[in-house]
Amino acid sequence: MKIITVSREFGSGGRELGKRLSDILGFDYYDREIITAIAKNSSLDESFVDYALEQQPVQVFTTNLRCSFATAPAVHSIQPSLLLEQKKVIDSIAAKGRDCVIVGRNADVLLQDYEPFNIFVCADMESRIERCLSRASGDESRQRRDIVRNIRRIDKVRARTRELISGSDWGDRGQYHLTVNTSGWDIRELAPAVADFAGKWFGRAK
Amino acid sequence: MKIITVSREFGSGGRELGKRLSDILGFDYYDREIITAIAKNSSLDESFVDYALEQQPVQVFTTNLRCSFATAPAVHSIQPSLLLEQKKVIDSIAAKGRDCVIVGRNADVLLQDYEPFNIFVCADMESRIERCLSRASGDESRQRRDIVRNIRRIDKVRARTRELISGSDWGDRGQYHLTVNTSGWDIRELAPAVADFAGKWFGRAK
Repeated sequence: MKIITVSREFGSGGRELGKRLSDILGFDYYDREIITAIAKNSSLDESFVDYALEQQPVQVFTTNLRCSFATAPAVHSIQPSLLLEQKKVIDSIAAKGRDCVIVGRNADVLLQDYEPFNIFVCADMESRIERCLSRASGDESRQRRDIVRNIRRIDKVRARTRELISGSDWGDRGQYHLTVNTSGWDIRELAPAVADFAGKWFGRAK
Repeated sequence: MKIITVSREFGSGGRELGKRLSDILGFDYYDREIITAIAKNSSLDESFVDYALEQQPVQVFTTNLRCSFATAPAVHSIQPSLLLEQKKVIDSIAAKGRDCVIVGRNADVLLQDYEPFNIFVCADMESRIERCLSRASGDESRQRRDIVRNIRRIDKVRARTRELISGSDWGDRGQYHLTVNTSGWDIRELAPAVADFAGKWFGRAK
């Protein structure tokens, strides 16, 4: 079984790259499907699960006085169980034994026993803003501020979650087989190059 | 003109990868040739130039009391002019207008106006030690200690030199198009994958 994991900076095009890789290689693809499964198994609303997993993780018993009391305590108390459920969902994907691409969710760490091919996707800030802007509508200068804030916030959450799960640095080059900078690329042109690369990794002499 | 630059952690196989890339693509190859040219232009011994450029760079006027007084002051006082000469040699390589691969020497920064394809090569510590050991002979346990010390020292010099030249972090993913982890690869199998990748970059729609 061949597993490709795609970790990525927010707005770098990692999700699109992952989808295209799965199309080119004929692999199963997992991204939103993981959130859907966590929500179903936990009897929670999908958008709540998504929201909860996008908040800065705190260690249990840590008091964060600056949080919004309306929602944050509920999120923080449920986050550990959602992360556990996420692990179960990802384990069950691997247990199917089918070739697949998994985007995000620290699947590279959770599935390390399966020896996945691990990709990290990054891009310069301007490319990331442009990518996010192309999906948005309305007042551009306001959007730009919001997007930059969102990029910084989500990157921070991803880094912190990874640290909690694996004790290792998010994006550290030593943890991935390939780190791809998508700045200046059309992902449609980049994807076949990455697919060839991954194919050669799986086919190499060991 | 197509330029590929290869920056690398010591012992990661970056030099071999660069050489193989040049063979596959039919590009000129520059590595030791740069040291030879600096030595010639400066009327200095090649091994001295090599040694001097492998010492921790210090900013002029910094006093390093722990240095060996026999050699270090000479090295430190000549290092800035060697780095300047190195820049001239690398500029003259680019001025030839021929496709080439340049290993090390911060060529990615020095030649950024030529829009090179920039690769960073890394590997886990054990792979790097193994690679260095395969080139050495004698008592293995002593060699291993020396190799680890050398890896740490040279990586530190490369990081510091880059910081002085460009003000940027050595190995930072955002500065390279592709970061390749050679652990688990035979460079002979990896090189064609990287060559294809670079070829697609040069051939992409802009």
